[in-house]
Amino acid sequence: MNIAIILFGDFETLDVFGPVEVFGRLPEVFGMNYYSMDGVTVSSTQGVEIATKKITEIGPDMDILFIPGGQGTRTAVNNAALIAAIKSLAQRARYAVTVCTGSSLLAKTTLLDGKAATTNKMAFAWVKSVRPEVNWKGRARWVVDGKYYTSSGVSAGIDMALGFVSDVVGVDTAKKIAHEIEYVWNSNPAKDPFFVEG
Amino acid sequence: MNIAIILFGDFETLDVFGPVEVFGRLPEVFGMNYYSMDGVTVSSTQGVEIATKKITEIGPDMDILFIPGGQGTRTAVNNAALIAAIKSLAQRARYAVTVCTGSSLLAKTTLLDGKAATTNKMAFAWVKSVRPEVNWKGRARWVVDGKYYTSSGVSAGIDMALGFVSDVVGVDTAKKIAHEIEYVWNSNPAKDPFFVEG
Repeated sequence: MNIAIILFGDFETLDVFGPVEVFGRLPEVFGMNYYSMDGVTVSSTQGVEIATKKITEIGPDMDILFIPGGQGTRTAVNNAALIAAIKSLAQRARYAVTVCTGSSLLAKTTLLDGKAATTNKMAFAWVKSVRPEVNWKGRARWVVDGKYYTSSGVSAGIDMALGFVSDVVGVDTAKKIAHEIEYVWNSNPAKDPFFVEG
Repeated sequence: MNIAIILFGDFETLDVFGPVEVFGRLPEVFGMNYYSMDGVTVSSTQGVEIATKKITEIGPDMDILFIPGGQGTRTAVNNAALIAAIKSLAQRARYAVTVCTGSSLLAKTTLLDGKAATTNKMAFAWVKSVRPEVNWKGRARWVVDGKYYTSSGVSAGIDMALGFVSDVVGVDTAKKIAHEIEYVWNSNPAKDPFFVEG
């Protein structure tokens, strides 16, 4: 399954590389490539620089659209061309997966209207204001609604990535990866230590 | 405090970017740069490509030496020039910090002889064999001995990075970062869910 990871300036480091660690442990299942609007080197808020291809180069073999969050979503959400590209890609993807405030970009496309989703709990009010038509969940480590996976803030992406592996590959594989990376997996998406009133 | 992050081919993604997420949230305290023996672009086992400077370019203002683990340590441990460079840098650093099997490289320098340290629990026997003179701890999320911080496998690096922030900046700052990244911090270094018999 080919994963297209969408980057933008000021993305959040762990939003991307937590899930990349998990998916990257199954190279026989997942392949990953990095894209941005301009196909340039993009820097996270924590200064990690990643070379990307242009988002228009994402081929028909893309299976999973992956969108991280971060401070950069505050700007990206007003980039009409980026939102249009995300909408088109999410419509044809088998799965669209977001971490943290990445769900604000997916929500802005209107594709999440009426669907259940979640986001960073510290930025909950802002994300809700971007698209109130979404059924935002204030208490959820991650939410699955059809092909849409949305996680809570930053490190919740690791829990969701393991949950995604559990759903599409198998729970034993997810548990094996968690053990290998010595990670105490919060495997219950309803258990949210950082919940807010939705 | 300037952190010099030492990379090599087949480093483990989360070993680096878990701690980078934590340190990167305090830009007024920590600056980070990436180095390798040849100063080229280095790829993690999970395919994350990072541009680096040459290890010889690390200046006298380096405060913290940071060494991740990963499959690449199996080769790197036999790279005499790299081990010599790590020895010299660790001797003059205020702190030397390793994640996962990164401790095998620091141990190889002999600087950990007689000191307490830990490593990835799945690779414990191998790391111990690299330098049996170290007091390897089979049950520890991370270990502090003087200026040396060594963590258990992969995700344990996040717990140790928060522990390091707690020690050098303050526990409230560490707790604030954990909350911001919605991470359930295992703040007790003696609590190790993945322990092995030492």
